[in-house]
Amino acid sequence: MMDATHAIRIVGIDPGLNLTGYGVIDFQQGRPRLVEAGVVRGRGRSLAGRLEQMYNGVVELIDAFQPACMAIEELYSHYARPRTAILMGHARGVICLAARQRGLTVTPYAATQIKKILTGAGRAPKSQVQRAVQRELGLLQLPDPPDVADALAIALCHGYLRDRPCERVKE
Amino acid sequence: MMDATHAIRIVGIDPGLNLTGYGVIDFQQGRPRLVEAGVVRGRGRSLAGRLEQMYNGVVELIDAFQPACMAIEELYSHYARPRTAILMGHARGVICLAARQRGLTVTPYAATQIKKILTGAGRAPKSQVQRAVQRELGLLQLPDPPDVADALAIALCHGYLRDRPCERVKE
Repeated sequence: MMDATHAIRIVGIDPGLNLTGYGVIDFQQGRPRLVEAGVVRGRGRSLAGRLEQMYNGVVELIDAFQPACMAIEELYSHYARPRTAILMGHARGVICLAARQRGLTVTPYAATQIKKILTGAGRAPKSQVQRAVQRELGLLQLPDPPDVADALAIALCHGYLRDRPCERVKE
Repeated sequence: MMDATHAIRIVGIDPGLNLTGYGVIDFQQGRPRLVEAGVVRGRGRSLAGRLEQMYNGVVELIDAFQPACMAIEELYSHYARPRTAILMGHARGVICLAARQRGLTVTPYAATQIKKILTGAGRAPKSQVQRAVQRELGLLQLPDPPDVADALAIALCHGYLRDRPCERVKE
């Protein structure tokens, strides 16, 4: 069990094959502080090449900021677009691998859960989530692009809900 | 362009999160020869842990047998079971990463294409594909389990069709 007064550094990840948003947040005494946020890009035409770029980018991010744990959007969010979901699965796979190799736990959150924690409503519009992230972190502007806002929202959610189990595979 | 008399070593992969089949085949003067075949397992309850096992197993396989290229079942085969397809995407992502990091090209083949090349029929039953693999490689028994038979079929398909482009991401 984590001591509430103990600082913890969380990286939140909004995974994608072309663009993965990340947000690094420190929590101390229940209060969040923004450390860094941005995107990792997977450029180029070959799938394997993009995956390598994505993996290398996430490894660099972990090595630079040394988060203790990773919070990531849940697996099964995009059934309506199976091709996109399977490609996202490839990216999410190499991101989870990078975290595991660096000793980070990986905790998944459903989009509805993240929205509910931050706004009180599981179906809140994106703009409301952005405003909640801005308020929680005391940012002068709305977080942008959406991938960064979502990654920060996931990291905040984990900061408030941590000690949840890491991602399991149902048999 | 590859000289037809030049030997080439191909690893065929049938990717899965729990079990990935592989088959290593040498082609020389258009004739295939079985080098090794088997499965890599992803055990344990955490998704990230299974992905790490799968990645490590494939890296060991590549380092042990030094294939020049990887042939792998195509992305979009399992729309009917989206959850399985997305999990398979995670495994396929770390396998493609391992290949890329070791300098192998990654070429995808659709299941129908593999069946057509080996049996003449894109809808051939599994047993017919197994018999074709047995015949092509001069095996005393039918290849088994199915994951190994499928991996060998993919490697054979690539041996006959090689010089196809590596896997691209459509924009």
